[in-house]
Amino acid sequence: MAAQQKTLNDLFLETLKDMYHAEKQILKALPKMAKATESDQLRQAFEQHREETEGQVERLEQVFEMLGKAARGKPCEAIQGIVEEGKEVMEDFKGTDALDAGLIAAAQAVEHYEISRYGTLRTWATQLGMSDAARLLEQTLQEEKKTDELLTQLAEAAINRQAA
Amino acid sequence: MAAQQKTLNDLFLETLKDMYHAEKQILKALPKMAKATESDQLRQAFEQHREETEGQVERLEQVFEMLGKAARGKPCEAIQGIVEEGKEVMEDFKGTDALDAGLIAAAQAVEHYEISRYGTLRTWATQLGMSDAARLLEQTLQEEKKTDELLTQLAEAAINRQAA
Repeated sequence: MAAQQKTLNDLFLETLKDMYHAEKQILKALPKMAKATESDQLRQAFEQHREETEGQVERLEQVFEMLGKAARGKPCEAIQGIVEEGKEVMEDFKGTDALDAGLIAAAQAVEHYEISRYGTLRTWATQLGMSDAARLLEQTLQEEKKTDELLTQLAEAAINRQAA
Repeated sequence: MAAQQKTLNDLFLETLKDMYHAEKQILKALPKMAKATESDQLRQAFEQHREETEGQVERLEQVFEMLGKAARGKPCEAIQGIVEEGKEVMEDFKGTDALDAGLIAAAQAVEHYEISRYGTLRTWATQLGMSDAARLLEQTLQEEKKTDELLTQLAEAAINRQAA
């Protein structure tokens, strides 16, 4: 048993660091995904989400500040695995008609990881009585959900194009 | 350029293998999570989802059969990363009041990965004209969404208990 028992505060801070690292990885991955696609719509979606992600990083920095902690990431194995899978698809399907489907799938896996983490962080912020932090995390959560919906629309548009 | 260009069929099969491996990892992780918690409700949720996961593995096997392919997994780095993060939380927060919050968060990260992948697979099955496969994948997708909602309820119940 540790001398000082860990609390939800510690778990919140650990998960915040995990997401800070994840967002930085995503900032690096999105321009590569935008460059890989030949679809204007999809490139635009990736570029727009890159800008949004910068704002999300700033919100995380604000939450670190509310905690009186320095904004610092810690390696997030989950996002590394998700991004790695996306890279493999980009390499394996480069120049094929299935590339965009693979890019959308990779981006949706990223979005869903973020939806789960921001949902969790928002709930914990509420539980810890940090309503300002909860509000910031909720804003990001809504952006991630919207991005996921847009990607679903782009994936379904491919079916409709094919059916036409 | 490969002699034979890869298609959406290949991407579908690759992602199916990825999920087959992921479900097997999840089958191993859930009993450990059930054992770790002291909450009856949470243990029950993990045990119930373990049973459900066995049915989901069978559905994947049916889809492999529809493709005329042997059911075979391929290492899924994403789920490995997500499960690894869950293990770390279990170790770091063992015996603390924050353990259940960490277990729920880990399980929701798994569910969201699955929601993204089954949503993608279902859309691709439709696009490939495999309506029976699409139906099976949709069934699993709905189960994953329900599990995620149940976990959200359990996380929020913790806030209400605290407020009471």
